[in-house]
Amino acid sequence: MSNMSEKFSTLVRDLQNQICRKLEAQDTRGKFIEDVWQRADGGGGITRILERGHVIEKGGVNTSAVFGPLTDSIKKQLKLDGTEFFATGISLVIHPINPMVPTVHANFRYFEVYDEKKQVLDSWFGGGADLTPYYLFEPDCIDFHRALQTSCAILDKDAYSSFKEICDNYFVNTHRNNERRGIGGIFYDHQRPGEKYSADQLFEFARDCAERFIDVYIEIMSRRKELPFTENQVYWQQIRRGRYIEFNLLHDRGTTFGLKSNGRTESILMSLPAQARFDYHDQPIPGSEEEKLTRVLLNPRDWL
Amino acid sequence: MSNMSEKFSTLVRDLQNQICRKLEAQDTRGKFIEDVWQRADGGGGITRILERGHVIEKGGVNTSAVFGPLTDSIKKQLKLDGTEFFATGISLVIHPINPMVPTVHANFRYFEVYDEKKQVLDSWFGGGADLTPYYLFEPDCIDFHRALQTSCAILDKDAYSSFKEICDNYFVNTHRNNERRGIGGIFYDHQRPGEKYSADQLFEFARDCAERFIDVYIEIMSRRKELPFTENQVYWQQIRRGRYIEFNLLHDRGTTFGLKSNGRTESILMSLPAQARFDYHDQPIPGSEEEKLTRVLLNPRDWL
Repeated sequence: MSNMSEKFSTLVRDLQNQICRKLEAQDTRGKFIEDVWQRADGGGGITRILERGHVIEKGGVNTSAVFGPLTDSIKKQLKLDGTEFFATGISLVIHPINPMVPTVHANFRYFEVYDEKKQVLDSWFGGGADLTPYYLFEPDCIDFHRALQTSCAILDKDAYSSFKEICDNYFVNTHRNNERRGIGGIFYDHQRPGEKYSADQLFEFARDCAERFIDVYIEIMSRRKELPFTENQVYWQQIRRGRYIEFNLLHDRGTTFGLKSNGRTESILMSLPAQARFDYHDQPIPGSEEEKLTRVLLNPRDWL
Repeated sequence: MSNMSEKFSTLVRDLQNQICRKLEAQDTRGKFIEDVWQRADGGGGITRILERGHVIEKGGVNTSAVFGPLTDSIKKQLKLDGTEFFATGISLVIHPINPMVPTVHANFRYFEVYDEKKQVLDSWFGGGADLTPYYLFEPDCIDFHRALQTSCAILDKDAYSSFKEICDNYFVNTHRNNERRGIGGIFYDHQRPGEKYSADQLFEFARDCAERFIDVYIEIMSRRKELPFTENQVYWQQIRRGRYIEFNLLHDRGTTFGLKSNGRTESILMSLPAQARFDYHDQPIPGSEEEKLTRVLLNPRDWL
């Protein structure tokens, strides 16, 4: 295990504490429960779940640090070589009750691969954050993207637009006419220290991005959590949550790879909303707020 | 197109009419709406959906007859050779409102592959029917399996137990400790005429099985549809429907292959229930009716 793997493990644990504290303060009632788990082949994780809060319907803020031999199946799926691996990260999804408050997802992770002499053969950073509103409040989308852009400047002036594009091309329900899961954010992977950015830059970026993203999300939540809403708006939220489930179970590599590689099912599937609807051929009414959102999901926008 | 492909196409259309009529009669209020669709590369289908009925919350009874060139991606995924294909079938899923009435799924299909001279290079039958109860009524499980066993006798005395085992091994949430989707039924695929059974036998078996399965399901529905139920029982039904969604989107080859090969999304995803719940680490209370069902899902039973 390298210095960076220890440093990143400590970071994700600190972030977990910080983020859970901030979310509980916003929720005012809900408390995270904690499950600590061990992985048979090495390492483990801390899963924290908040269900039936005052503002949050269901949310998970998970960390893990796992290591062990690289199985043939992992090598084949991740297309890599090596003998052992170490992986650590934080992954969170928050599904609020009020349809005016968006769902958010974020993930920051670090991966190392070792050769038979336990030397680091390869290593990379990955992560991102993306927002899934049910109703479009443009200032929220702009603030969310601006916070990510500010963090990306730690890397360079091009990082934001590059990672934003990767995000728009990743969270896609290809079976739904390429409708996006939400209004995007950033997504990055395989950022090898010393290639484009240094290890210190990539570490600092992950830390800064995680802190900025949670602060802007908390700000959006506080703006919208007391807004009134109707039964019909909850119905639409439930339909959109169905699409969220479709993306996560059909397309999300983290989810499908995690489940196939014998990851902890309950921790992985915390990302699914508490409730969802699946209607046949649901179509928002032309000109409605619901259709306005759909148009943005079909044609990702430049928010800045 | 062979004689059998025409014969089977006619069968599935007849079955669709017959089954929709029987389900509407049971429901007493709901009516199927019909969408006729064309496939760009050849053929099309008839999708019939009943939503918000008196007994049925959501149900689909779909037929299709599609043909055209075998793309490289289909050849690779289905591991077959040839120039063109023809496929026809009926596929249905019924999700009732009352948690005492099980969900049911059935599918009967016929596939032909042609060489460049339009000669049939390969052909096979597939299908099956399986029951997904929320509460265990043993007589229902026994009657359902007995109806399938009776049909299987058209093939031979071993077909039922062989197809029952394939079903138990197919509808498995491998990521949920190998919990089955339901109490099983039968599943068969790649039954090539002239191998074990003749084309006439396989055709007659599909016809008989579709008719017996719908009759026994209608009988089960009529027994249970007026039973009282509680909010907690609906909650459990919603949790189980979450597992149904997990199976269909993560593991079901028909669904994932259909969506990947550019099938009609709305027709494929009619299989998803109208509503579902996903709680973190839901565990039925030991000794409860809910746990009794779970034990059977973890250890498939011989019902006959």
